[in-house]
Amino acid sequence: MEPLIVLKIGGNVIDNPSVLEAVLRDFASWQTPRILVHGGGKIASKLMEKLGIVPKMVEGRRITDRETLDIVTMVYAGLINKNMVAALQSHACNAIGLTGADANLIPAVKRPVKDVDYGFVGDLNPGCISAKTLTNLVKTGLVPVMAPITHDGAGSLLNTNADTIASSVAIALAKSFSVQLVFCFEKNGVLRDPDDDHSVIDFLDMALFQKYKEEGIITAGMIPKLNNAFAALHSGVAEVRICSPDNLSAGTRIKMM
Amino acid sequence: MEPLIVLKIGGNVIDNPSVLEAVLRDFASWQTPRILVHGGGKIASKLMEKLGIVPKMVEGRRITDRETLDIVTMVYAGLINKNMVAALQSHACNAIGLTGADANLIPAVKRPVKDVDYGFVGDLNPGCISAKTLTNLVKTGLVPVMAPITHDGAGSLLNTNADTIASSVAIALAKSFSVQLVFCFEKNGVLRDPDDDHSVIDFLDMALFQKYKEEGIITAGMIPKLNNAFAALHSGVAEVRICSPDNLSAGTRIKMM
Repeated sequence: MEPLIVLKIGGNVIDNPSVLEAVLRDFASWQTPRILVHGGGKIASKLMEKLGIVPKMVEGRRITDRETLDIVTMVYAGLINKNMVAALQSHACNAIGLTGADANLIPAVKRPVKDVDYGFVGDLNPGCISAKTLTNLVKTGLVPVMAPITHDGAGSLLNTNADTIASSVAIALAKSFSVQLVFCFEKNGVLRDPDDDHSVIDFLDMALFQKYKEEGIITAGMIPKLNNAFAALHSGVAEVRICSPDNLSAGTRIKMM
Repeated sequence: MEPLIVLKIGGNVIDNPSVLEAVLRDFASWQTPRILVHGGGKIASKLMEKLGIVPKMVEGRRITDRETLDIVTMVYAGLINKNMVAALQSHACNAIGLTGADANLIPAVKRPVKDVDYGFVGDLNPGCISAKTLTNLVKTGLVPVMAPITHDGAGSLLNTNADTIASSVAIALAKSFSVQLVFCFEKNGVLRDPDDDHSVIDFLDMALFQKYKEEGIITAGMIPKLNNAFAALHSGVAEVRICSPDNLSAGTRIKMM
Protein backbone atom coordinates (compact mmCIF):
# COMPACT_ATOMS: atom_id res chain seq x y z
CA MET A 1 0.00 0.00 0.00
CA GLU A 2 1.07 3.58 -0.64
CA PRO A 3 2.56 5.25 2.43
CA LEU A 4 0.87 8.22 4.12
CA ILE A 5 2.07 10.24 7.10
CA VAL A 6 -0.21 11.88 9.67
CA LEU A 7 1.82 14.41 11.68
CA LYS A 8 0.32 15.87 14.83
CA ILE A 9 1.76 19.06 16.33
CA GLY A 10 0.68 20.75 19.55
CA GLY A 11 1.37 23.75 21.72
CA ASN A 12 5.11 23.12 22.07
CA VAL A 13 5.42 23.75 18.33
CA ILE A 14 2.58 26.22 17.70
CA ASP A 15 3.57 28.60 20.50
CA ASN A 16 7.16 28.89 19.28
CA PRO A 17 7.30 30.66 15.88
CA SER A 18 10.85 29.57 14.98
CA VAL A 19 10.16 25.92 15.91
CA LEU A 20 6.88 26.04 13.98
CA GLU A 21 8.59 27.49 10.92
CA ALA A 22 11.24 24.73 11.03
CA VAL A 23 8.63 21.98 11.43
CA LEU A 24 6.53 23.33 8.55
CA ARG A 25 9.62 23.58 6.35
CA ASP A 26 10.48 19.92 7.12
CA PHE A 27 6.92 18.76 6.62
CA ALA A 28 6.69 20.67 3.32
CA SER A 29 9.84 18.95 2.02
CA TRP A 30 8.44 15.44 2.46
CA GLN A 31 7.28 13.81 -0.73
CA THR A 32 4.95 11.22 0.83
CA PRO A 33 1.19 11.93 0.83
CA ARG A 34 0.61 13.54 4.23
CA ILE A 35 -1.79 15.23 6.59
CA LEU A 36 -0.96 17.75 9.31
CA VAL A 37 -3.17 17.85 12.41
CA HIS A 38 -2.62 20.73 14.79
CA GLY A 39 -3.75 21.55 18.30
CA GLY A 40 -4.31 24.95 19.80
CA GLY A 41 -1.53 26.15 22.08
CA LYS A 42 -1.77 29.25 24.21
CA ILE A 43 -2.95 31.84 21.68
CA ALA A 44 -6.63 31.25 22.46
CA SER A 45 -6.07 31.65 26.20
CA LYS A 46 -4.11 34.84 25.60
CA LEU A 47 -6.91 36.24 23.44
CA MET A 48 -9.48 35.33 26.10
CA GLU A 49 -7.39 37.11 28.69
CA LYS A 50 -7.13 40.24 26.51
CA LEU A 51 -10.92 40.16 26.12
CA GLY A 52 -11.42 39.72 29.85
CA ILE A 53 -13.05 36.32 29.40
CA VAL A 54 -12.39 34.06 32.37
CA PRO A 55 -11.95 30.42 31.29
CA LYS A 56 -14.66 28.24 32.82
CA MET A 57 -13.12 25.32 34.67
CA VAL A 58 -14.80 22.35 36.37
CA GLU A 59 -12.59 19.94 38.33
CA GLY A 60 -9.50 21.35 36.65
CA ARG A 61 -10.91 20.80 33.17
CA ARG A 62 -11.78 23.55 30.79
CA ILE A 63 -15.39 23.99 29.70
CA THR A 64 -16.09 25.12 26.14
CA ASP A 65 -18.98 27.53 26.53
CA ARG A 66 -20.35 29.53 23.55
CA GLU A 67 -17.86 32.36 24.04
CA THR A 68 -14.91 29.96 24.27
CA LEU A 69 -16.10 28.06 21.20
CA ASP A 70 -16.10 31.30 19.20
CA ILE A 71 -12.57 32.10 20.39
CA VAL A 72 -11.14 28.64 19.57
CA THR A 73 -12.89 28.68 16.19
CA MET A 74 -11.27 32.02 15.40
CA VAL A 75 -7.83 31.06 16.66
CA TYR A 76 -7.57 27.38 15.67
CA ALA A 77 -9.51 27.36 12.38
CA GLY A 78 -8.63 30.94 11.41
CA LEU A 79 -5.39 32.40 12.71
CA ILE A 80 -3.31 29.26 13.30
CA ASN A 81 -4.66 27.10 10.50
CA LYS A 82 -4.55 29.70 7.72
CA ASN A 83 -1.12 31.02 8.65
CA MET A 84 0.20 27.44 8.57
CA VAL A 85 -1.38 26.96 5.16
CA ALA A 86 0.20 30.18 3.86
CA ALA A 87 3.61 29.12 5.25
CA LEU A 88 3.35 25.64 3.68
CA GLN A 89 2.29 27.18 0.37
CA SER A 90 5.41 29.37 0.47
CA HIS A 91 7.41 26.11 0.69
CA ALA A 92 5.62 24.70 -2.37
CA CYS A 93 3.44 22.35 -0.32
CA ASN A 94 -0.15 22.45 -1.61
CA ALA A 95 -1.80 22.72 1.81
CA ILE A 96 -5.55 23.01 2.32
CA GLY A 97 -6.75 24.05 5.76
CA LEU A 98 -9.80 22.23 7.04
CA THR A 99 -11.92 21.61 10.10
CA GLY A 100 -14.05 18.53 10.64
CA ALA A 101 -17.06 20.57 9.45
CA ASP A 102 -15.52 21.17 6.03
CA ALA A 103 -16.67 18.57 3.50
CA ASN A 104 -18.26 16.87 6.52
CA LEU A 105 -14.85 15.30 7.20
CA ILE A 106 -15.48 14.65 10.90
CA PRO A 107 -19.10 14.55 12.05
CA ALA A 108 -18.74 14.35 15.85
CA VAL A 109 -21.01 14.03 18.85
CA LYS A 110 -21.36 16.73 21.47
CA ARG A 111 -20.06 15.15 24.66
CA PRO A 112 -23.06 13.91 26.66
CA VAL A 113 -23.65 15.69 29.98
CA LYS A 114 -23.01 13.35 32.92
CA ASP A 115 -21.41 14.75 36.06
CA VAL A 116 -19.88 17.60 34.10
CA ASP A 117 -21.21 19.57 31.13
CA TYR A 118 -18.11 20.18 29.03
CA GLY A 119 -20.09 22.38 26.65
CA PHE A 120 -19.28 22.44 22.95
CA VAL A 121 -16.79 19.58 22.99
CA GLY A 122 -16.87 16.95 20.27
CA ASP A 123 -16.23 13.24 20.81
CA LEU A 124 -15.48 11.01 17.83
CA ASN A 125 -17.21 7.73 17.21
CA PRO A 126 -15.19 4.96 15.56
CA GLY A 127 -15.66 5.15 11.83
CA CYS A 128 -16.90 8.74 11.83
CA ILE A 129 -14.11 10.13 9.62
CA SER A 130 -15.12 10.67 5.95
CA ALA A 131 -12.14 8.65 4.72
CA LYS A 132 -13.28 8.73 1.11
CA THR A 133 -13.36 12.54 0.88
CA LEU A 134 -10.03 12.84 2.69
CA THR A 135 -8.50 10.21 0.39
CA ASN A 136 -9.80 12.05 -2.68
CA LEU A 137 -8.19 15.29 -1.50
CA VAL A 138 -4.88 13.55 -0.81
CA LYS A 139 -4.98 11.69 -4.15
CA THR A 140 -5.28 14.99 -6.03
CA GLY A 141 -2.02 16.12 -4.43
CA LEU A 142 -3.49 18.32 -1.73
CA VAL A 143 -2.09 18.27 1.81
CA PRO A 144 -4.87 18.62 4.41
CA VAL A 145 -4.03 20.76 7.46
CA MET A 146 -6.61 19.96 10.09
CA ALA A 147 -7.68 22.23 12.94
CA PRO A 148 -9.07 20.65 16.14
CA ILE A 149 -12.64 21.70 15.42
CA THR A 150 -15.42 19.34 14.35
CA HIS A 151 -19.19 19.75 14.03
CA ASP A 152 -22.35 18.03 15.20
CA GLY A 153 -24.14 17.95 11.85
CA ALA A 154 -26.87 20.16 13.31
CA GLY A 155 -25.11 23.46 12.72
CA SER A 156 -22.78 23.67 15.70
CA LEU A 157 -19.01 23.54 15.69
CA LEU A 158 -17.32 21.51 18.43
CA ASN A 159 -13.92 21.86 20.13
CA THR A 160 -12.12 18.53 19.73
CA ASN A 161 -8.87 17.03 21.00
CA ALA A 162 -6.19 17.14 18.30
CA ASP A 163 -4.54 13.84 19.38
CA THR A 164 -7.91 12.13 18.96
CA ILE A 165 -8.37 13.67 15.51
CA ALA A 166 -4.86 12.57 14.45
CA SER A 167 -5.41 8.97 15.66
CA SER A 168 -8.89 8.76 14.14
CA VAL A 169 -7.71 10.13 10.78
CA ALA A 170 -4.76 7.71 10.79
CA ILE A 171 -7.03 4.76 11.55
CA ALA A 172 -9.61 5.81 8.95
CA LEU A 173 -6.96 6.01 6.21
CA ALA A 174 -5.23 2.76 7.22
CA LYS A 175 -7.60 0.86 4.93
CA SER A 176 -6.18 2.61 1.85
CA PHE A 177 -2.66 3.61 2.91
CA SER A 178 0.24 2.27 4.96
CA VAL A 179 -0.10 4.98 7.62
CA GLN A 180 2.65 6.31 9.83
CA LEU A 181 1.23 8.39 12.70
CA VAL A 182 3.78 10.85 14.11
CA PHE A 183 3.24 12.73 17.35
CA CYS A 184 5.49 15.74 17.74
CA PHE A 185 6.26 15.76 21.43
CA GLU A 186 8.07 17.96 24.01
CA LYS A 187 10.77 15.33 24.53
CA ASN A 188 12.97 13.52 22.01
CA GLY A 189 10.75 10.44 22.30
CA VAL A 190 9.81 7.93 24.97
CA LEU A 191 12.65 8.21 27.51
CA ARG A 192 14.22 5.55 29.76
CA ASP A 193 15.06 8.34 32.17
CA PRO A 194 12.64 11.31 32.12
CA ASP A 195 15.51 13.60 33.19
CA ASP A 196 17.84 12.52 30.40
CA ASP A 197 16.69 13.72 27.00
CA HIS A 198 19.27 11.46 25.32
CA SER A 199 17.81 8.25 26.81
CA VAL A 200 15.33 7.75 23.96
CA ILE A 201 13.89 4.26 23.57
CA ASP A 202 14.34 3.72 19.82
CA PHE A 203 11.76 1.01 19.41
CA LEU A 204 8.73 -0.31 21.23
CA ASP A 205 6.41 -3.18 20.52
CA MET A 206 3.67 -4.55 22.78
CA ALA A 207 6.03 -7.00 24.55
CA LEU A 208 8.67 -4.31 25.21
CA PHE A 209 5.97 -1.90 26.38
CA GLN A 210 4.74 -4.49 28.92
CA LYS A 211 8.31 -5.22 30.03
CA TYR A 212 9.22 -1.53 30.49
CA LYS A 213 5.98 -0.90 32.36
CA GLU A 214 6.68 -3.80 34.71
CA GLU A 215 10.24 -2.58 35.24
CA GLY A 216 8.95 0.90 36.06
CA ILE A 217 10.90 2.42 33.13
CA ILE A 218 7.75 3.67 31.42
CA THR A 219 5.67 5.50 33.98
CA ALA A 220 2.30 7.13 34.49
CA GLY A 221 2.62 10.16 32.20
CA MET A 222 3.49 8.16 29.09
CA ILE A 223 1.12 5.23 29.57
CA PRO A 224 -2.11 6.81 28.21
CA LYS A 225 -0.20 8.15 25.17
CA LEU A 226 1.28 4.70 24.49
CA ASN A 227 -2.05 2.97 25.06
CA ASN A 228 -3.48 5.27 22.37
CA ALA A 229 -0.53 4.44 20.10
CA PHE A 230 -1.14 0.69 20.46
CA ALA A 231 -4.87 1.21 19.95
CA ALA A 232 -4.06 2.92 16.62
CA LEU A 233 -1.71 0.07 15.64
CA HIS A 234 -4.39 -2.43 16.64
CA SER A 235 -6.78 -0.62 14.27
CA GLY A 236 -4.48 -0.93 11.29
CA VAL A 237 -2.02 1.96 11.52
CA ALA A 238 1.37 0.62 10.36
CA GLU A 239 3.60 2.59 12.71
CA VAL A 240 3.37 5.27 15.39
CA ARG A 241 6.29 7.55 16.16
CA ILE A 242 6.83 9.92 19.06
CA CYS A 243 9.52 12.48 18.32
CA SER A 244 10.63 16.02 19.05
CA PRO A 245 10.16 18.96 16.67
CA ASP A 246 13.97 19.12 16.38
CA ASN A 247 14.10 15.84 14.51
CA LEU A 248 10.89 14.65 12.93
CA SER A 249 12.52 11.51 11.53
CA ALA A 250 13.98 10.29 14.86
CA GLY A 251 12.28 9.49 18.19
CA THR A 252 10.59 6.30 19.36
CA ARG A 253 9.18 3.95 16.70
CA ILE A 254 6.21 1.93 17.90
CA LYS A 255 4.94 -1.11 16.04
CA MET A 256 2.71 -4.05 16.89
CA MET A 257 5.69 -6.43 16.84
CA MET B 1 -22.14 24.01 -20.60
CA GLU B 2 -23.16 22.97 -17.12
CA PRO B 3 -24.52 25.85 -15.04
CA LEU B 4 -22.71 27.11 -11.93
CA ILE B 5 -23.77 29.84 -9.53
CA VAL B 6 -21.38 32.13 -7.63
CA LEU B 7 -23.29 33.86 -4.82
CA LYS B 8 -21.66 36.76 -3.02
CA ILE B 9 -22.98 37.87 0.36
CA GLY B 10 -21.75 40.81 2.41
CA GLY B 11 -22.30 42.61 5.69
CA ASN B 12 -26.04 43.15 5.21
CA VAL B 13 -26.44 39.36 5.37
CA ILE B 14 -23.56 38.34 7.66
CA ASP B 15 -24.41 40.85 10.40
CA ASN B 16 -28.02 39.70 10.62
CA PRO B 17 -28.22 36.11 11.98
CA SER B 18 -31.81 35.45 10.88
CA VAL B 19 -31.20 36.82 7.36
CA LEU B 20 -27.97 34.80 7.14
CA GLU B 21 -29.73 31.63 8.25
CA ALA B 22 -32.45 32.14 5.61
CA VAL B 23 -29.90 32.83 2.84
CA LEU B 24 -27.85 29.75 3.77
CA ARG B 25 -31.00 27.62 3.82
CA ASP B 26 -31.93 28.86 0.33
CA PHE B 27 -28.40 28.41 -0.98
CA ALA B 28 -28.23 24.89 0.49
CA SER B 29 -31.46 23.90 -1.28
CA TRP B 30 -30.13 24.75 -4.75
CA GLN B 31 -29.11 21.75 -6.81
CA THR B 32 -26.79 23.56 -9.26
CA PRO B 33 -23.03 23.39 -8.65
CA ARG B 34 -22.31 26.53 -6.66
CA ILE B 35 -19.80 28.61 -4.75
CA LEU B 36 -20.50 31.01 -1.90
CA VAL B 37 -18.20 34.02 -1.46
CA HIS B 38 -18.61 36.02 1.71
CA GLY B 39 -17.37 39.37 2.93
CA GLY B 40 -16.65 40.43 6.46
CA GLY B 41 -19.35 42.59 8.01
CA LYS B 42 -18.98 44.32 11.35
CA ILE B 43 -17.78 41.44 13.57
CA ALA B 44 -14.09 42.19 12.98
CA SER B 45 -14.53 45.88 13.86
CA LYS B 46 -16.44 44.93 17.01
CA LEU B 47 -13.67 42.54 18.06
CA MET B 48 -11.04 45.22 17.41
CA GLU B 49 -13.03 47.64 19.54
CA LYS B 50 -13.25 45.09 22.39
CA LEU B 51 -9.48 44.61 22.16
CA GLY B 52 -8.89 48.36 22.17
CA ILE B 53 -7.37 48.30 18.69
CA VAL B 54 -8.01 51.55 16.84
CA PRO B 55 -8.55 50.95 13.10
CA LYS B 56 -5.86 52.66 11.05
CA MET B 57 -7.42 54.89 8.43
CA VAL B 58 -5.76 56.90 5.65
CA GLU B 59 -7.96 59.21 3.59
CA GLY B 60 -11.06 57.44 4.83
CA ARG B 61 -9.75 54.03 3.81
CA ARG B 62 -8.89 51.28 6.22
CA ILE B 63 -5.30 50.07 6.43
CA THR B 64 -4.68 46.38 7.10
CA ASP B 65 -1.72 46.38 9.45
CA ARG B 66 -0.40 43.14 11.01
CA GLU B 67 -2.80 43.33 13.96
CA THR B 68 -5.79 43.95 11.69
CA LEU B 69 -4.74 41.11 9.38
CA ASP B 70 -4.73 38.72 12.36
CA ILE B 71 -8.20 39.89 13.39
CA VAL B 72 -9.74 39.55 9.92
CA THR B 73 -8.07 36.15 9.48
CA MET B 74 -9.65 34.98 12.74
CA VAL B 75 -13.06 36.45 12.05
CA TYR B 76 -13.45 35.93 8.28
CA ALA B 77 -11.60 32.61 7.79
CA GLY B 78 -12.41 31.22 11.25
CA LEU B 79 -15.58 32.42 12.95
CA ILE B 80 -17.72 33.45 9.97
CA ASN B 81 -16.51 30.90 7.43
CA LYS B 82 -16.64 27.82 9.67
CA ASN B 83 -20.00 28.67 11.19
CA MET B 84 -21.41 29.08 7.68
CA VAL B 85 -19.95 25.71 6.72
CA ALA B 86 -21.49 24.06 9.80
CA ALA B 87 -24.87 25.67 9.02
CA LEU B 88 -24.76 24.54 5.38
CA GLN B 89 -23.74 21.03 6.45
CA SER B 90 -26.80 20.94 8.74
CA HIS B 91 -28.88 21.62 5.60
CA ALA B 92 -27.22 18.71 3.76
CA CYS B 93 -25.05 20.99 1.61
CA ASN B 94 -21.50 19.60 1.45
CA ALA B 95 -19.74 22.92 2.09
CA ILE B 96 -15.97 23.29 2.33
CA GLY B 97 -14.65 26.55 3.76
CA LEU B 98 -11.61 27.97 2.01
CA THR B 99 -9.42 31.03 1.73
CA GLY B 100 -7.34 31.89 -1.31
CA ALA B 101 -4.32 30.37 0.47
CA ASP B 102 -5.95 26.94 0.68
CA ALA B 103 -4.94 24.73 -2.24
CA ASN B 104 -3.30 27.91 -3.60
CA LEU B 105 -6.73 28.86 -4.97
CA ILE B 106 -6.01 32.59 -5.17
CA PRO B 107 -2.37 33.67 -5.23
CA ALA B 108 -2.62 37.44 -4.94
CA VAL B 109 -0.28 40.42 -4.96
CA LYS B 110 0.22 42.67 -1.95
CA ARG B 111 -1.02 46.07 -3.08
CA PRO B 112 1.99 48.14 -4.16
CA VAL B 113 2.71 51.17 -1.99
CA LYS B 114 2.10 54.39 -3.93
CA ASP B 115 0.63 57.39 -2.11
CA VAL B 116 -0.88 55.12 0.53
CA ASP B 117 0.43 51.88 2.07
CA TYR B 118 -2.70 49.81 2.49
CA GLY B 119 -0.74 47.12 4.33
CA PHE B 120 -1.66 43.46 3.95
CA VAL B 121 -4.22 43.92 1.19
CA GLY B 122 -4.29 41.57 -1.77
CA ASP B 123 -5.02 42.57 -5.35
CA LEU B 124 -5.92 39.93 -7.91
CA ASN B 125 -4.29 39.68 -11.30
CA PRO B 126 -6.43 38.45 -14.19
CA GLY B 127 -6.05 34.69 -14.49
CA CYS B 128 -4.71 34.21 -10.95
CA ILE B 129 -7.52 31.92 -9.78
CA SER B 130 -6.63 28.18 -9.72
CA ALA B 131 -9.67 27.30 -11.80
CA LYS B 132 -8.64 23.67 -12.21
CA THR B 133 -8.48 22.97 -8.46
CA LEU B 134 -11.72 24.82 -7.84
CA THR B 135 -13.39 22.92 -10.69
CA ASN B 136 -12.15 19.59 -9.29
CA LEU B 137 -13.64 20.40 -5.88
CA VAL B 138 -16.97 21.40 -7.43
CA LYS B 139 -17.02 18.33 -9.68
CA THR B 140 -16.68 16.03 -6.65
CA GLY B 141 -19.88 17.57 -5.24
CA LEU B 142 -18.26 19.93 -2.77
CA VAL B 143 -19.57 23.48 -2.32
CA PRO B 144 -16.70 25.95 -1.73
CA VAL B 145 -17.41 28.72 0.78
CA MET B 146 -14.77 31.36 0.24
CA ALA B 147 -13.54 33.87 2.83
CA PRO B 148 -12.13 37.21 1.63
CA ILE B 149 -8.54 36.27 2.48
CA THR B 150 -5.86 35.42 -0.09
CA HIS B 151 -2.08 34.97 0.16
CA ASP B 152 1.07 36.27 -1.49
CA GLY B 153 2.75 32.89 -2.02
CA ALA B 154 5.58 34.00 0.27
CA GLY B 155 3.88 33.05 3.53
CA SER B 156 1.64 36.03 4.16
CA LEU B 157 -2.12 36.14 4.14
CA LEU B 158 -3.78 39.16 2.51
CA ASN B 159 -7.11 40.87 3.17
CA THR B 160 -9.02 40.94 -0.13
CA ASN B 161 -12.24 42.49 -1.36
CA ALA B 162 -15.00 39.86 -1.51
CA ASP B 163 -16.71 41.39 -4.60
CA THR B 164 -13.40 41.10 -6.45
CA ILE B 165 -13.00 37.47 -5.37
CA ALA B 166 -16.55 36.67 -6.49
CA SER B 167 -16.08 38.30 -9.92
CA SER B 168 -12.65 36.72 -10.42
CA VAL B 169 -13.88 33.26 -9.45
CA ALA B 170 -16.91 33.65 -11.75
CA ILE B 171 -14.69 34.72 -14.66
CA ALA B 172 -12.16 31.92 -14.02
CA LEU B 173 -14.88 29.26 -14.08
CA ALA B 174 -16.66 30.73 -17.12
CA LYS B 175 -14.41 28.63 -19.39
CA SER B 176 -15.87 25.39 -17.98
CA PHE B 177 -19.33 26.40 -16.78
CA SER B 178 -22.20 28.68 -17.74
CA VAL B 179 -21.72 30.96 -14.74
CA GLN B 180 -24.37 33.05 -13.05
CA LEU B 181 -22.81 35.60 -10.68
CA VAL B 182 -25.26 36.76 -8.00
CA PHE B 183 -24.58 39.74 -5.74
CA CYS B 184 -26.73 39.79 -2.65
CA PHE B 185 -27.39 43.47 -2.14
CA GLU B 186 -29.05 45.80 0.41
CA LYS B 187 -31.81 46.72 -2.05
CA ASN B 188 -34.14 44.50 -4.09
CA GLY B 189 -31.98 45.11 -7.16
CA VAL B 190 -31.05 48.07 -9.35
CA LEU B 191 -33.81 50.60 -8.68
CA ARG B 192 -35.36 53.21 -11.00
CA ASP B 193 -36.07 55.27 -7.91
CA PRO B 194 -33.60 54.78 -5.03
CA ASP B 195 -36.37 55.64 -2.56
CA ASP B 196 -38.80 53.06 -3.92
CA ASP B 197 -37.71 49.51 -3.18
CA HIS B 198 -40.39 48.21 -5.56
CA SER B 199 -38.97 50.05 -8.58
CA VAL B 200 -36.59 47.22 -9.52
CA ILE B 201 -35.25 47.25 -13.07
CA ASP B 202 -35.81 43.61 -14.07
CA PHE B 203 -33.32 43.47 -16.88
CA LEU B 204 -30.28 45.39 -18.04
CA ASP B 205 -28.05 44.98 -21.05
CA MET B 206 -25.28 47.30 -22.19
CA ALA B 207 -27.65 49.42 -24.31
CA LEU B 208 -30.19 49.82 -21.51
CA PHE B 209 -27.41 50.60 -19.04
CA GLN B 210 -26.17 53.42 -21.34
CA LYS B 211 -29.70 54.69 -21.82
CA TYR B 212 -30.51 54.71 -18.07
CA LYS B 213 -27.21 56.42 -17.32
CA GLU B 214 -27.93 59.12 -19.89
CA GLU B 215 -31.45 59.58 -18.51
CA GLY B 216 -30.03 59.90 -14.98
CA ILE B 217 -32.04 56.88 -13.80
CA ILE B 218 -28.91 54.94 -12.85
CA THR B 219 -26.69 57.20 -10.77
CA ALA B 220 -23.26 57.39 -9.19
CA GLY B 221 -23.57 54.75 -6.44
CA MET B 222 -24.61 51.95 -8.80
CA ILE B 223 -22.30 52.75 -11.73
CA PRO B 224 -19.07 51.10 -10.41
CA LYS B 225 -21.04 47.98 -9.42
CA LEU B 226 -22.62 47.77 -12.87
CA ASN B 227 -19.32 48.48 -14.62
CA ASN B 228 -17.92 45.47 -12.72
CA ALA B 229 -20.94 43.41 -13.73
CA PHE B 230 -20.42 44.22 -17.41
CA ALA B 231 -16.68 43.53 -17.08
CA ALA B 232 -17.55 40.05 -15.78
CA LEU B 233 -20.01 39.50 -18.65
CA HIS B 234 -17.37 40.74 -21.08
CA SER B 235 -14.99 38.09 -19.66
CA GLY B 236 -17.38 35.22 -20.26
CA VAL B 237 -19.76 35.17 -17.30
CA ALA B 238 -23.21 34.26 -18.67
CA GLU B 239 -25.33 36.40 -16.36
CA VAL B 240 -24.96 38.73 -13.40
CA ARG B 241 -27.79 39.27 -10.96
CA ILE B 242 -28.18 41.87 -8.22
CA CYS B 243 -30.82 40.89 -5.69
CA SER B 244 -31.83 41.18 -2.06
CA PRO B 245 -31.34 38.44 0.55
CA ASP B 246 -35.15 38.23 0.78
CA ASN B 247 -35.42 36.79 -2.70
CA LEU B 248 -32.29 35.30 -4.17
CA SER B 249 -34.04 34.35 -7.39
CA ALA B 250 -35.41 37.84 -8.16
CA GLY B 251 -33.66 41.20 -8.59
CA THR B 252 -32.02 42.71 -11.65
CA ARG B 253 -30.76 40.35 -14.36
CA ILE B 254 -27.81 41.72 -16.31
CA LYS B 255 -26.66 40.22 -19.60
CA MET B 256 -24.49 41.39 -22.48
CA MET B 257 -27.53 41.66 -24.74
